[in-house]
Amino acid sequence: MFLTRTEYDRGVNTFSPEGRLFQVEYAIEAIKLGSTAIGLKTKEGVVLAVEKRITSPLLEPSSVEKIMEIDDHIGCAMSGLIADARTLVEHARVETQNHRFSYGEPMTVESTTQALCDLALRFGEGDEESMSRPFGVSLLIAGHDENGPSLYYTDPSGTFWQCNAKAIGSGSEGADSSLQEQYNKDLTLQEAEKIALSILKQVMEERVTPNNVDIAKVAPTYHLYTPAEVEAVISQL
Amino acid sequence: MFLTRTEYDRGVNTFSPEGRLFQVEYAIEAIKLGSTAIGLKTKEGVVLAVEKRITSPLLEPSSVEKIMEIDDHIGCAMSGLIADARTLVEHARVETQNHRFSYGEPMTVESTTQALCDLALRFGEGDEESMSRPFGVSLLIAGHDENGPSLYYTDPSGTFWQCNAKAIGSGSEGADSSLQEQYNKDLTLQEAEKIALSILKQVMEERVTPNNVDIAKVAPTYHLYTPAEVEAVISQL
Amino acid sequence: MFLTRTEYDRGVNTFSPEGRLFQVEYAIEAIKLGSTAIGLKTKEGVVLAVEKRITSPLLEPSSVEKIMEIDDHIGCAMSGLIADARTLVEHARVETQNHRFSYGEPMTVESTTQALCDLALRFGEGDEESMSRPFGVSLLIAGHDENGPSLYYTDPSGTFWQCNAKAIGSGSEGADSSLQEQYNKDLTLQEAEKIALSILKQVMEERVTPNNVDIAKVAPTYHLYTPAEVEAVISQL
Amino acid sequence: MFLTRTEYDRGVNTFSPEGRLFQVEYAIEAIKLGSTAIGLKTKEGVVLAVEKRITSPLLEPSSVEKIMEIDDHIGCAMSGLIADARTLVEHARVETQNHRFSYGEPMTVESTTQALCDLALRFGEGDEESMSRPFGVSLLIAGHDENGPSLYYTDPSGTFWQCNAKAIGSGSEGADSSLQEQYNKDLTLQEAEKIALSILKQVMEERVTPNNVDIAKVAPTYHLYTPAEVEAVISQL
Amino acid sequence: MFLTRTEYDRGVNTFSPEGRLFQVEYAIEAIKLGSTAIGLKTKEGVVLAVEKRITSPLLEPSSVEKIMEIDDHIGCAMSGLIADARTLVEHARVETQNHRFSYGEPMTVESTTQALCDLALRFGEGDEESMSRPFGVSLLIAGHDENGPSLYYTDPSGTFWQCNAKAIGSGSEGADSSLQEQYNKDLTLQEAEKIALSILKQVMEERVTPNNVDIAKVAPTYHLYTPAEVEAVISQL
Amino acid sequence: MFLTRTEYDRGVNTFSPEGRLFQVEYAIEAIKLGSTAIGLKTKEGVVLAVEKRITSPLLEPSSVEKIMEIDDHIGCAMSGLIADARTLVEHARVETQNHRFSYGEPMTVESTTQALCDLALRFGEGDEESMSRPFGVSLLIAGHDENGPSLYYTDPSGTFWQCNAKAIGSGSEGADSSLQEQYNKDLTLQEAEKIALSILKQVMEERVTPNNVDIAKVAPTYHLYTPAEVEAVISQL
Amino acid sequence: MFLTRTEYDRGVNTFSPEGRLFQVEYAIEAIKLGSTAIGLKTKEGVVLAVEKRITSPLLEPSSVEKIMEIDDHIGCAMSGLIADARTLVEHARVETQNHRFSYGEPMTVESTTQALCDLALRFGEGDEESMSRPFGVSLLIAGHDENGPSLYYTDPSGTFWQCNAKAIGSGSEGADSSLQEQYNKDLTLQEAEKIALSILKQVMEERVTPNNVDIAKVAPTYHLYTPAEVEAVISQL
Repeated sequence: MFLTRTEYDRGVNTFSPEGRLFQVEYAIEAIKLGSTAIGLKTKEGVVLAVEKRITSPLLEPSSVEKIMEIDDHIGCAMSGLIADARTLVEHARVETQNHRFSYGEPMTVESTTQALCDLALRFGEGDEESMSRPFGVSLLIAGHDENGPSLYYTDPSGTFWQCNAKAIGSGSEGADSSLQEQYNKDLTLQEAEKIALSILKQVMEERVTPNNVDIAKVAPTYHLYTPAEVEAVISQL
Repeated sequence: MFLTRTEYDRGVNTFSPEGRLFQVEYAIEAIKLGSTAIGLKTKEGVVLAVEKRITSPLLEPSSVEKIMEIDDHIGCAMSGLIADARTLVEHARVETQNHRFSYGEPMTVESTTQALCDLALRFGEGDEESMSRPFGVSLLIAGHDENGPSLYYTDPSGTFWQCNAKAIGSGSEGADSSLQEQYNKDLTLQEAEKIALSILKQVMEERVTPNNVDIAKVAPTYHLYTPAEVEAVISQL
Repeated sequence: MFLTRTEYDRGVNTFSPEGRLFQVEYAIEAIKLGSTAIGLKTKEGVVLAVEKRITSPLLEPSSVEKIMEIDDHIGCAMSGLIADARTLVEHARVETQNHRFSYGEPMTVESTTQALCDLALRFGEGDEESMSRPFGVSLLIAGHDENGPSLYYTDPSGTFWQCNAKAIGSGSEGADSSLQEQYNKDLTLQEAEKIALSILKQVMEERVTPNNVDIAKVAPTYHLYTPAEVEAVISQL
Repeated sequence: MFLTRTEYDRGVNTFSPEGRLFQVEYAIEAIKLGSTAIGLKTKEGVVLAVEKRITSPLLEPSSVEKIMEIDDHIGCAMSGLIADARTLVEHARVETQNHRFSYGEPMTVESTTQALCDLALRFGEGDEESMSRPFGVSLLIAGHDENGPSLYYTDPSGTFWQCNAKAIGSGSEGADSSLQEQYNKDLTLQEAEKIALSILKQVMEERVTPNNVDIAKVAPTYHLYTPAEVEAVISQL
Repeated sequence: MFLTRTEYDRGVNTFSPEGRLFQVEYAIEAIKLGSTAIGLKTKEGVVLAVEKRITSPLLEPSSVEKIMEIDDHIGCAMSGLIADARTLVEHARVETQNHRFSYGEPMTVESTTQALCDLALRFGEGDEESMSRPFGVSLLIAGHDENGPSLYYTDPSGTFWQCNAKAIGSGSEGADSSLQEQYNKDLTLQEAEKIALSILKQVMEERVTPNNVDIAKVAPTYHLYTPAEVEAVISQL
Repeated sequence: MFLTRTEYDRGVNTFSPEGRLFQVEYAIEAIKLGSTAIGLKTKEGVVLAVEKRITSPLLEPSSVEKIMEIDDHIGCAMSGLIADARTLVEHARVETQNHRFSYGEPMTVESTTQALCDLALRFGEGDEESMSRPFGVSLLIAGHDENGPSLYYTDPSGTFWQCNAKAIGSGSEGADSSLQEQYNKDLTLQEAEKIALSILKQVMEERVTPNNVDIAKVAPTYHLYTPAEVEAVISQL
Repeated sequence: MFLTRTEYDRGVNTFSPEGRLFQVEYAIEAIKLGSTAIGLKTKEGVVLAVEKRITSPLLEPSSVEKIMEIDDHIGCAMSGLIADARTLVEHARVETQNHRFSYGEPMTVESTTQALCDLALRFGEGDEESMSRPFGVSLLIAGHDENGPSLYYTDPSGTFWQCNAKAIGSGSEGADSSLQEQYNKDLTLQEAEKIALSILKQVMEERVTPNNVDIAKVAPTYHLYTPAEVEAVISQL
């Protein structure tokens, strides 16, 4: 009685007879092609760790940025189309700066996440800031505000969830299982670093080095680990 | 003489030869995939109860918000695409705030519902606030104003109805039957809480806990139950 | 020589080789799916009566509004897509209010009807107030102005006619026949009430009660009957 | 070598290989479905007569307006989509009023006709006043200005011609033949009335009454005949 | 290797693999369906002559205008869609008036022709004055300026050429051959009139009368021949 | 694995799987249908020569302009769609005039060429000055500025190259070969004239006369040869 | 279950079921058709070298610009569609000039690269500066700022990477392998010149001459080598 699914999946904003939006689902597929990123929330702060696919030895590893600062108290890890992520991060930076300017205080992590998702939701609407297709990227947003540390996960539909721990990208399925086994609420930040990196190590196809992973924490301010700091975590594995 | 239905169902705003708008009907299907939500109106106030599908133990249950406050005297439960619901709720919040500012008094529940549905109706029109497709969400809007407590139900076509009790989402069919059997106009708020939760329990596939349901009341102001308060209702079942 | 009709019926504003606009004709079909509404003009004023499909005992009958006030001296009954009708009625309310404000006198019933139809005609034109498809609704507009009582009938093409009596909706064919038999220009308002309700009773599949019908009159001001007043008319049948 | 005609006939503004614009031709078909209208120019003034299809005895005959006043000295009869005609007439009314306001004198009949056709020609252009399809209507424009009486005929392509006599609508073919036989330039206005009505009588399938025809003259000002005046002409046949 | 031509001929502005713009070529076909028009340049001035298809004896011949004045010193004959031609002529009239106003002198014939063609070229561009399809009309523009008399020929692509003599419309092929045989640069204006009318006579299927042809000259100002003047030329054939 | 080329060649701005833009390539084909034009740079200045297809003896040869002045020090020869070329030349004229006005000195030849190509590149972008398809024209731009004489060649993609000599149009292939054989940097302007015309003679199918070729030089100012000057060059062949 | 890839590859911004954007991938193919360009970063500065396909001996080699200056301290080499590259470079020039004007200091190389990529990412969005398709060009951006020398590589998706050495264009695969073998961080600028040119020599199909290659360095300011300087490097091979 219905057409096959393929008849409904090219219109950016067309419901299928079952009520599905296929272009959003395909954008989610783009993330499954991306590098793996992991986030863990502890009472001391949040840890983010990402795989940095260095496709050529001539690439400058530090220029492959898959963890970015949004504000002093917020950072994010990404998986999927990097150029799309940059647009979202840039939007969030402007929003947090405007908030500080208008209200004289930092924007909460949830409000920042909401602002990001508002932009992501409005794809295909033809307005100034939105895109004509879903953003092909997922973010793990780590922050610290008056409610303490928090970790959010966003997807291309503009939906977000607060998590204790979460993995995204091509290795996310296995990594999520490992996180469920190893995570508990009483982890120290140092334990979280080790868990994040050891799980990343499992899903990566090559040896972990300071060149092909990045680690950052928000505790309570954003800090991207130096190669030496990454090396120190690796050496504990 | 006519084409099969599938020839008419992708244009956002195309009538079929029988006078149907299929994209709206498909958006309604999106809601049938959603989690179940229930509302009951009593003389003392309105109760809302929702199922919160927690897909991973690492998700923060409190961040899965399927009941939201619109204003002091209005709250709503939702089923379908959560990001769409957030857009509608945000719109309603601005409308109710503007009303308070302009007229120095709260907006009535019906006017608030009407404002929400005006936005929902204008999908595909290309103007500033509307979307290019129907909003894939149904709302149960609970409120209390000069006319006493009231409960409204909205669907993706921008139509709304006032109800004494109503269920939406994947379990709505069974839940509506149960509501018709158990509802009467003289229920106390406490009895309504119990009925809502016991019906929700029937349609959920897992044990009911403070983590996977939310309850709220508007009596006469909006209040989202704490885990302890939810636990108390559960213990009475 | 020509394609079958089905090749011309999805463009919102495409003529078929025979000079027909199919999307308008399909919108007219939407009205044939709607509930029945009846209007009768007498020298004393105009009576409107509608069937209110109450699909669930938990619905609040008074919230299923199929007769609405436009201004003190104008009301309308509708059949088809209720959300579309609300947009038209809201537009008419603004127009009549603006007229009062600008000219210090009520807008005539014909001008009000013309204003409604101007909006209805401009579907597919992409301007601010119009829709991208025909409005899927017919209206019976009852009013009273310097020319005495009048009854207008509008359809989705933006055309209108003045009538002595008219039925719209799923039962309109039978109801129109009955009206032609029973109508004469010398009816009293009370006789008109009875005729309207008795015809409605014939086309409805359930017993007529104050819950499932609404009656209103404009004589010379708009008045929606209370349940008691409806009950009184029912008791005379 | 070419596609069949059916491949070129749905684009609003697409030439076929033979240089034809099919959507305009189809709009002209819409007029062939319309009621018949007739115009005759005499030295004393212009007469317009139209068939008024009264589809139900409950319709108010006077509300089926197929002859309308544009200005004191200009009126028009129409055939085709009535709502489209109303838009054109409304446009012409504004133009003639603006002209009087700006220049302190009435607009000539030709300029008024040209203004109407400018709007008709611009279908599919997406600007403020035009429509996205051809206007499905033909007009007979009768007027009287410094050049004496004149009669214009317009079609959906935006073209117009000045005529001594002309019929439009479903009965136009037979009516035009009769006009050619009976017309001469020395007719009195009274003779013209009789000819118009007798020809209309031939093409109508029912008896001519003051209810189902309208007559108007511009001699030198616009006047729509009262039922009594129509009856008087009928009685002379 | 390529698709057949028919795959490229409906996009208004799509090149075929051979570098052709078919919609322009089809618009040129529209002109081949039009009535014939002829222009001849002499040292004394330019003559234009057109066939006026009078499809009904009730049409006012003088209202079938296929020769129009643009300015005192410029006139044009047209073949193709008359409503399109009117738009171009109106544009040219505004341009020449603006020129007189701004510079206090008449616009040259070439500049006027260029202005017309600039508008014709921009079809499909969506700006204010242009159309969404090519203008289906060719013009013969006759003028007299500081460079003496001149005759221009324009086509739907927005290209123009200066000619000594030229025919357009359905009979243009035969007429152009005759012109090449009979034209020489030393013709008097009177000889040119006769040649134009005798060639027109050959391509017309009916007898030439003052009713079915128009003649105009620009020598050095525009003058449309009265019926008597046309009759005088006819009598010399 | 891929579709045939024909599936990608109608979108104005669609890459094929091999990274090609077919509409640009087809526009280049339009130029291969055009008349031949030749340019040669010498130390003394630049020579342009074009074939002028005079399709009818009644055409005024001087009105077939395929060499045009842009500014005192810049001229250009064209091949392809003449109306497109006029738009580009008009744009360049405005740019060079604006430059003189703003900076009090002539625009360099390269900047002028760049300005032309900026406009050509932006086809399909929907902004004010650009077209919805590639410009179907190539230009040879001859100029003289502070860097001495220079010759540029542009194509429909908006790319340009500086050349010592270049041929465009239907005969360009053979003409380019001849240019490579006969060109050297020490040619005098007079030798260049002869070479240009002798090569043009080879590719033209008719006898070369002052009527069917144009010659211009920029040395250091633009000069279009009079018929007598052209005749003088012909006589030297 | 899915359509073949070819069903998803023509929409500019449509995800395929696997989450791929084919139009971006096809634009990347356009670069594989382009000439080869090479960049190497040393401690002393950055070297860029490009192949200049001189398709005709009559082309002026210096006008084939495939290395361009962006600002005093930034230059770039390009491969792909040259007209697209010019648009990006022009945008970057404006950005760097604005930065100098606003902040009184040079823009960093990374910010400049980011600005370029922001524009590249927004293809298909319909705003003022962006294009309706991906830019079909890759750039190697060489610069020197407060962080010392740096080399960036951009692709049509709007993504960029920092590299020590990189080749783009048709010969990039072989050239990248050679770069990985020969590159080390302690190269002198002179050694880098030699490596760049020797690798270019390998991938070019003709003898290397000052006419068919260009070399530039940013050390710390941009300098394009003169033919003599290129010759000097060639002589060292």
